[in-house]
Amino acid sequence: MKIIPLILMGCGGVGRQLLQRIVSCRSLHSSQGLCLRVVGVGDSKSLVVSDDLLRKGLGDSFLLELCRVKSAGESLSKLCDFGECRTFVHPELQGRILEIASQIGKITGLVIVDCSASSDTIVVLRKAVDMGCCIVMANKKPLTSTMEDFKKLFMYPRRIRHESTVGAGLPVIASLNRIVSSGDPVDHIIGSLSGTLGYVMSEVEDGKPLSQVVRAAKVLGYTEPDPRDDLGGMDVARKALILARILGNQINLDSIQIESLYPKEMGPDVMTVEDFLDRGLLLLDKDIQDRVEKAASNGNVLRYVCVIEGSRCEVGIQELPKNSPLGRLRGSDNVLEIYTRCYSDQPLVIQGAGAGNDTTAAGVLADIVDLQDLFS
Amino acid sequence: MKIIPLILMGCGGVGRQLLQRIVSCRSLHSSQGLCLRVVGVGDSKSLVVSDDLLRKGLGDSFLLELCRVKSAGESLSKLCDFGECRTFVHPELQGRILEIASQIGKITGLVIVDCSASSDTIVVLRKAVDMGCCIVMANKKPLTSTMEDFKKLFMYPRRIRHESTVGAGLPVIASLNRIVSSGDPVDHIIGSLSGTLGYVMSEVEDGKPLSQVVRAAKVLGYTEPDPRDDLGGMDVARKALILARILGNQINLDSIQIESLYPKEMGPDVMTVEDFLDRGLLLLDKDIQDRVEKAASNGNVLRYVCVIEGSRCEVGIQELPKNSPLGRLRGSDNVLEIYTRCYSDQPLVIQGAGAGNDTTAAGVLADIVDLQDLFS
Repeated sequence: MKIIPLILMGCGGVGRQLLQRIVSCRSLHSSQGLCLRVVGVGDSKSLVVSDDLLRKGLGDSFLLELCRVKSAGESLSKLCDFGECRTFVHPELQGRILEIASQIGKITGLVIVDCSASSDTIVVLRKAVDMGCCIVMANKKPLTSTMEDFKKLFMYPRRIRHESTVGAGLPVIASLNRIVSSGDPVDHIIGSLSGTLGYVMSEVEDGKPLSQVVRAAKVLGYTEPDPRDDLGGMDVARKALILARILGNQINLDSIQIESLYPKEMGPDVMTVEDFLDRGLLLLDKDIQDRVEKAASNGNVLRYVCVIEGSRCEVGIQELPKNSPLGRLRGSDNVLEIYTRCYSDQPLVIQGAGAGNDTTAAGVLADIVDLQDLFS
Repeated sequence: MKIIPLILMGCGGVGRQLLQRIVSCRSLHSSQGLCLRVVGVGDSKSLVVSDDLLRKGLGDSFLLELCRVKSAGESLSKLCDFGECRTFVHPELQGRILEIASQIGKITGLVIVDCSASSDTIVVLRKAVDMGCCIVMANKKPLTSTMEDFKKLFMYPRRIRHESTVGAGLPVIASLNRIVSSGDPVDHIIGSLSGTLGYVMSEVEDGKPLSQVVRAAKVLGYTEPDPRDDLGGMDVARKALILARILGNQINLDSIQIESLYPKEMGPDVMTVEDFLDRGLLLLDKDIQDRVEKAASNGNVLRYVCVIEGSRCEVGIQELPKNSPLGRLRGSDNVLEIYTRCYSDQPLVIQGAGAGNDTTAAGVLADIVDLQDLFS
């Protein structure tokens, strides 16, 4: 039986789904000669660690209890009553994770799984790379920091997986890596990588006012608590940056041209969320509707896309043919069109749900399993 | 530098494109710390082998000369003048490949790459698995033989790659394997996996007679020399069988329900290709046109698809909504819709060119590179 020890950082929605998947896949993985051993789980405040790191992980019933505790909004430290673990609290968390990494990283190997949404994990991840650990990320922040951080993480590229940083579980990164390693030159990539903005753009296309669509999207749970986090385009820009860097572009977030769907005067520093939803948005309706109509008069539709072509990387609204994979996109699906030498007239298209905790966790789990050849 | 020694079986169009890609990717792979060492290349009649297997492969200029010789329709044995190789001829080829496998397989590791279209390679592949070799296939035949052969090849599943057996270089197998290993239950798969039949079905949809469309497809080089090889559905059935087996269905080719687009009375045993094209096809026009019209009256279109759902595996014409990824398909692209727990309402869709030597070779090369963690 091949054992993959792992520490999970972040047990919000994605992290919890991952733990549940790991538990429910026990017999599947076992039939493949594989055992995923969860030796530690942490959030921003606490870390629980197996009390016999080299020999056993946290038990499955413990992991499910942990998911229950976190779902209920309680603290991980509550789990210390449970017996089979030790618990550490901030600020000794990161130090403790690195201690484990140095202790078992070289002996059994270790995967550090980052399902947080924090920029703080990058310190741990950088050091863990030096200690020979593998890293799996759903968190985009460590990959969209400086080029120096990026290069450091990719010092041993085979030990890094991050499928769920772009398009959740959609096989975007895996496919792009295959294209790169087969030497098929990428001409350009264009994609709709925000389920929220995909939904918004296809709804305004039907003539609905932007303000109404955004409010509905918020009610449906499609947006962040402050919808400006989606409408500003920064999340899409991070995804675009990750794709551009995979293609070898040594660029930073600030080299990406980002079109925000709201002006600075309606930013979070100026306006409350409520104000933005009640008043701000209304002022944006006419402009978007004019653009939608102008596009329609050319037989086109508007999509909020990222475009990567050579060293150019842009994020914003584009007018696209109605009869293209992107133009036909409805609802909250993500879609990516990749044009290469092999896919020159018609692109390689990958499409499907690009958000959701379960889908994101599925991508993370597939990444972990895919690292198995590095473990003994 | 990590070295991956490989032997290529089959140097038709795909094999030659692969060799050219390997040569042109030298500096790319080298920058990744990787060296693909081609120690032998064979076709059905001859095998050329490096004269110092453990230390060096066939040189790049030799490989390009080999491509030239094969393109010109000449024999590989012509290359023995070239100096740096030994040449073997049928019937000692397979024995010699296995000798190499036993000689270097355990020391440096070895990838056997099957870019042939032959059923005969399965003997070598089965034995090579026992010797610890990795296997990469573009050839569908070894995977669509008996379940016993299939299981034998997949005895060590991490050592087997075969992306280019379905949809050429499209990341179909890689994506499906990720879904399986993340424990996301597949509900069903539906796909158009023949560029030829995709083209034919979208042209008859426009009202063109089948006979005219097939003849045009033949002129365009979209069909096999005998178009019945495409129209019979066997090629699609092989692809469907591979997908079904990946999903764990222990079925054989003869358990698949295959709809042929021509009746037995027009089969190759009864009618010449010319007769079929000149007379036979005309007799099929009306029936297809009636079905196209009936589908259109329901707002649907006809597509030649494979459907895999539970233990059911079918290949044939289906009536599908015009407004679905499959219904919108035009021309010779392949498209696969995968419905799982994560992708339940809207499928995961992979679409793009599913044929062509260059694309197929790209998939094979990505497979080889992806095996690198098994080499030292």
